[in-house]
Amino acid sequence: MNLSKKPYKGCRDLFPPEKLRQDYLFQRMRQTAQLFHYQPYDGPLLEDIELYRAKSGEELIGEQVYDFIDRGQRHVAIRPEMTPSLARMIAQVHRELPKPIRWYSIPNLMRYERPQRGRLREHWQFNCDIFGAPAGEGELELLQLLIHLLESFGAGQEHFEIKINDRRLMENFFKQKLKINNEQTGQLYRFVDRYQKITHDQREQQLAAIQLSEEQKDLFNAFLEIKNFTELQLYFQNENELLVDIQQLMENLQSLNLAQYVEYDPFIVRGLDYYTGLVFEVFDKHPENRRALCGGGAYDNLLALFNEKPLNAVGFGLGDVTLKDFLLTHQLLDEKEIHKPPLLITFQDQIAHLYAKKICQAFRSNDQQCEFLMTPIKINKAFDYAQKKNIHFVVLIGQDEFNNAQFQIRNLEKRESSYFQLKEIKANLLEGL
Amino acid sequence: MNLSKKPYKGCRDLFPPEKLRQDYLFQRMRQTAQLFHYQPYDGPLLEDIELYRAKSGEELIGEQVYDFIDRGQRHVAIRPEMTPSLARMIAQVHRELPKPIRWYSIPNLMRYERPQRGRLREHWQFNCDIFGAPAGEGELELLQLLIHLLESFGAGQEHFEIKINDRRLMENFFKQKLKINNEQTGQLYRFVDRYQKITHDQREQQLAAIQLSEEQKDLFNAFLEIKNFTELQLYFQNENELLVDIQQLMENLQSLNLAQYVEYDPFIVRGLDYYTGLVFEVFDKHPENRRALCGGGAYDNLLALFNEKPLNAVGFGLGDVTLKDFLLTHQLLDEKEIHKPPLLITFQDQIAHLYAKKICQAFRSNDQQCEFLMTPIKINKAFDYAQKKNIHFVVLIGQDEFNNAQFQIRNLEKRESSYFQLKEIKANLLEGL
Repeated sequence: MNLSKKPYKGCRDLFPPEKLRQDYLFQRMRQTAQLFHYQPYDGPLLEDIELYRAKSGEELIGEQVYDFIDRGQRHVAIRPEMTPSLARMIAQVHRELPKPIRWYSIPNLMRYERPQRGRLREHWQFNCDIFGAPAGEGELELLQLLIHLLESFGAGQEHFEIKINDRRLMENFFKQKLKINNEQTGQLYRFVDRYQKITHDQREQQLAAIQLSEEQKDLFNAFLEIKNFTELQLYFQNENELLVDIQQLMENLQSLNLAQYVEYDPFIVRGLDYYTGLVFEVFDKHPENRRALCGGGAYDNLLALFNEKPLNAVGFGLGDVTLKDFLLTHQLLDEKEIHKPPLLITFQDQIAHLYAKKICQAFRSNDQQCEFLMTPIKINKAFDYAQKKNIHFVVLIGQDEFNNAQFQIRNLEKRESSYFQLKEIKANLLEGL
Repeated sequence: MNLSKKPYKGCRDLFPPEKLRQDYLFQRMRQTAQLFHYQPYDGPLLEDIELYRAKSGEELIGEQVYDFIDRGQRHVAIRPEMTPSLARMIAQVHRELPKPIRWYSIPNLMRYERPQRGRLREHWQFNCDIFGAPAGEGELELLQLLIHLLESFGAGQEHFEIKINDRRLMENFFKQKLKINNEQTGQLYRFVDRYQKITHDQREQQLAAIQLSEEQKDLFNAFLEIKNFTELQLYFQNENELLVDIQQLMENLQSLNLAQYVEYDPFIVRGLDYYTGLVFEVFDKHPENRRALCGGGAYDNLLALFNEKPLNAVGFGLGDVTLKDFLLTHQLLDEKEIHKPPLLITFQDQIAHLYAKKICQAFRSNDQQCEFLMTPIKINKAFDYAQKKNIHFVVLIGQDEFNNAQFQIRNLEKRESSYFQLKEIKANLLEGL
């Protein structure tokens, strides 16, 4: 027998150093969500394929979804994203719940991707959504939450920026200014979404296919020249009502000292997605990692899939891989916080084996993390082992300690020893040493 | 459009109350594993089907595994259990790691099950494994860990028991005493494993199919009569060497005051699994929920699948559904610990809206969980809402507070108010109130 030791293509074997880091990210996500009183939920790994077909269309399913027929002849898919399951669950309970409904989740998702940096077939995604908030409030709160999360790692405006746009503004521009039809609108959304990922020639080619007049092209190009919110205001100076929502958001951010993170950007449209209002993406500012960490926006109509009335919603998804890459790029992961060293419990003589077990048990009963060395070890070797693992405190039990019903705790940094009896073990005993 | 709102068969929609509870269980599992210095890992959701075929045989795959052909013509399966992925990962790194290797994981798994109480198609499982420990030490440590976890919920010997057996003992009994062949041995393992789930008639029928002589039947039935470790010692009184390992374990448990949880039981054989030494199951003692919460044991040969030398191992898997059912049955889930109420932040007048946001932001910056009410609310309604949600503290900001650049914190239990300014917000502010 000789099976492959490799993981399935595009998936990760998360060995302890990497999984510890991932758990640390998850813990921060949970803490931040709880700080804003978002409540956790989770849905099934498999869903009826119709759920994705209805929301995303055949194209996405054909290209990106893991689907198969189960033994009961049901056509199912492994969830490629969380929002459809979320919408299905909200459709069941939204009538009974006080608004706004604030939920979060950290599901594992699978997409058929060509594996590349930051894009894997399996990843986890931190999803936060708010339903039924007053106009503009959900958008603000989710941006606050995102910024709080990133700041909690020590990230600041030198590390990331949030680019925003508004689908209503884009709709107005396409329909009222460019006066193009629905098909062209869809094509232009897709074009804008991919603009910065394609070459100059590809741009020309794709734009030609959309068949805009010279006048339309000029208008469109002028619009794409808008660099920030001030220029946007200039552009729409006679139609201020279009900017009311985005202006309100910017003012709120200003008052909360968060405006430095957020800027208007006409290229943020979130592709063919289901967004209907504000859309946003978080970008890494590092020149070598200029990618979106996270995308989100406002959407109203997902409950219609379940024959329910529209319910306004805002949500975002933040991938664990892109977040990790961002934090690593900027050296914002504190390894000392991630790997908290245990107390190492050793014995030097076989006679003390059971006694050492009891000491270990007593420390654990007092919430002290312990690593127990299961065979006798010489003191110097125990110290070597501890140093290699960044462990500061070592319990030593030699013949003397055993005969005196004692044990020694060695502080390796201070090179000091203290002696205790089993019954003296208590919570936080190491703190004073 | 009218999609179904139901989850896929045998899977759960985990709405916030249930997911909060699950997260609480996961958090306890992680804390306990860390207390014993087990390190987290995770593997891919999908694996090459050969991995399961090699370990479990065609039968399990045909009946219980979600498998399909991916777009690259790979035959893959959604992981039905974690041990094969674990073995694959350990096979990659075991040579370089100091022993023992202690790992844990809490993966989501999928099995084709007929959904019933405690058995769902999707569940999570707490897996702990130790590789390369000295003889008997891994078994002891994992039992300690399991007991610590259950005790941490307040469970005691009135709630659960751990039944143990030893596959080496069973092998010896089957081969040396019954003198049956390999095929019959396999059949008898399966028979014993299912004994307590089938009727008397089914037992007779199945036993007849195994074709034991009358003498073999008598011996076998006498063996199954063994009720505890003392009776086991009597049964094997002239062959004490067979009981050395299990005796050593019992003595260790005795010294650590854990023996009250553990008893010998000849019916614990862990079916057709890959175990080679000690096997154990944790049982609920409640008369209406007498089920195994958790099973595990010692295994040596899984690395052989990858052409690696044998490495001794012990592991267990504990399902989230069975654990939850156990804790609910005995009312061991402390809802107050699971649902920690936030600080409710309200404002009574629209003029204070932005000011209330700043107060909320300041509390969150000081790690205080806050729920923010996004529209003005009358004081009595705010109190009603807080009471319904078990919230103890409410921030109130009316016209007066706003004009004085203050806010009020109301302690609903004591019916007392305190007044603060924005700049006075600090960590643990509520503790003194």
